[in-house]
Amino acid sequence: MSNAVSGPRPSAAKQIEEGLQLTPRFDADGLIICVATDVSSGDILMVAHMNAEALQKTIASGEAWYFSRSRQQLWRKGETSGHVQRVLEMRVDCDQDCVWIKVEQQGAGACHTGRRSCFYRAVPLGQSDAVRLEFRDAEPVFDPAKVYGSNE
Amino acid sequence: MSNAVSGPRPSAAKQIEEGLQLTPRFDADGLIICVATDVSSGDILMVAHMNAEALQKTIASGEAWYFSRSRQQLWRKGETSGHVQRVLEMRVDCDQDCVWIKVEQQGAGACHTGRRSCFYRAVPLGQSDAVRLEFRDAEPVFDPAKVYGSNE
Repeated sequence: MSNAVSGPRPSAAKQIEEGLQLTPRFDADGLIICVATDVSSGDILMVAHMNAEALQKTIASGEAWYFSRSRQQLWRKGETSGHVQRVLEMRVDCDQDCVWIKVEQQGAGACHTGRRSCFYRAVPLGQSDAVRLEFRDAEPVFDPAKVYGSNE
Repeated sequence: MSNAVSGPRPSAAKQIEEGLQLTPRFDADGLIICVATDVSSGDILMVAHMNAEALQKTIASGEAWYFSRSRQQLWRKGETSGHVQRVLEMRVDCDQDCVWIKVEQQGAGACHTGRRSCFYRAVPLGQSDAVRLEFRDAEPVFDPAKVYGSNE
């Protein structure tokens, strides 16, 4: 999303976009966005953030690590739930502020609400007034109370 | 990604996660993340941001609008390139800070570098030293100089 007006200077942008060096552009909080898709269905399972350590651990281990903004801590996906994500492929985008991981989701689901994916509600299109969401692919696949315990 | 420790209080969290009201949680800059996937291939085309106006215009028009952080302005995808994105479905995630749009990409590609997708480089896994990216699905599908003009 950088451009010649306010992005990195042209030579730096060229290097970031066309180079073969991984030079992640972390935001002011030291984070980049990570989108995890299911390698079989192609569906987005979740969108979360990684700091440098989470990114490094994911690359080295082939399992997804994130940085929890709410808990302000490094977070190995599945450490509580057992719902580990095995990473089969990682991509980085043009301006290197986002990564995409294609994962094999272990266990029933990725979402802490008990669904397979965090994206279980659709936003109807073609409306300009109050929008009423519609549940879609929202069947619970596990019981969060049992998986995370009673304090979550 | 919210939890009982530092996320919204339980009743509010329940409403955000299980309710049918669209209550986007914009960040400090007034933005939410938007992931656009190709409705045919399922591949991620791009990840960008929307402010309230971009989100409202996308929902109302069924075409993707974003907010450009580098230019600090509302941005109708394709306004310069003609590479409009027709939105076939929109989903919102559990904590409502991210939307996923499944789009029909008009024109050759979504990435300003001339590729179909912004994610044209893979990050090899299982490494702990310097990582060398690998081009993947990186064939140019249009000439950015022709599409955006010489000033970009």
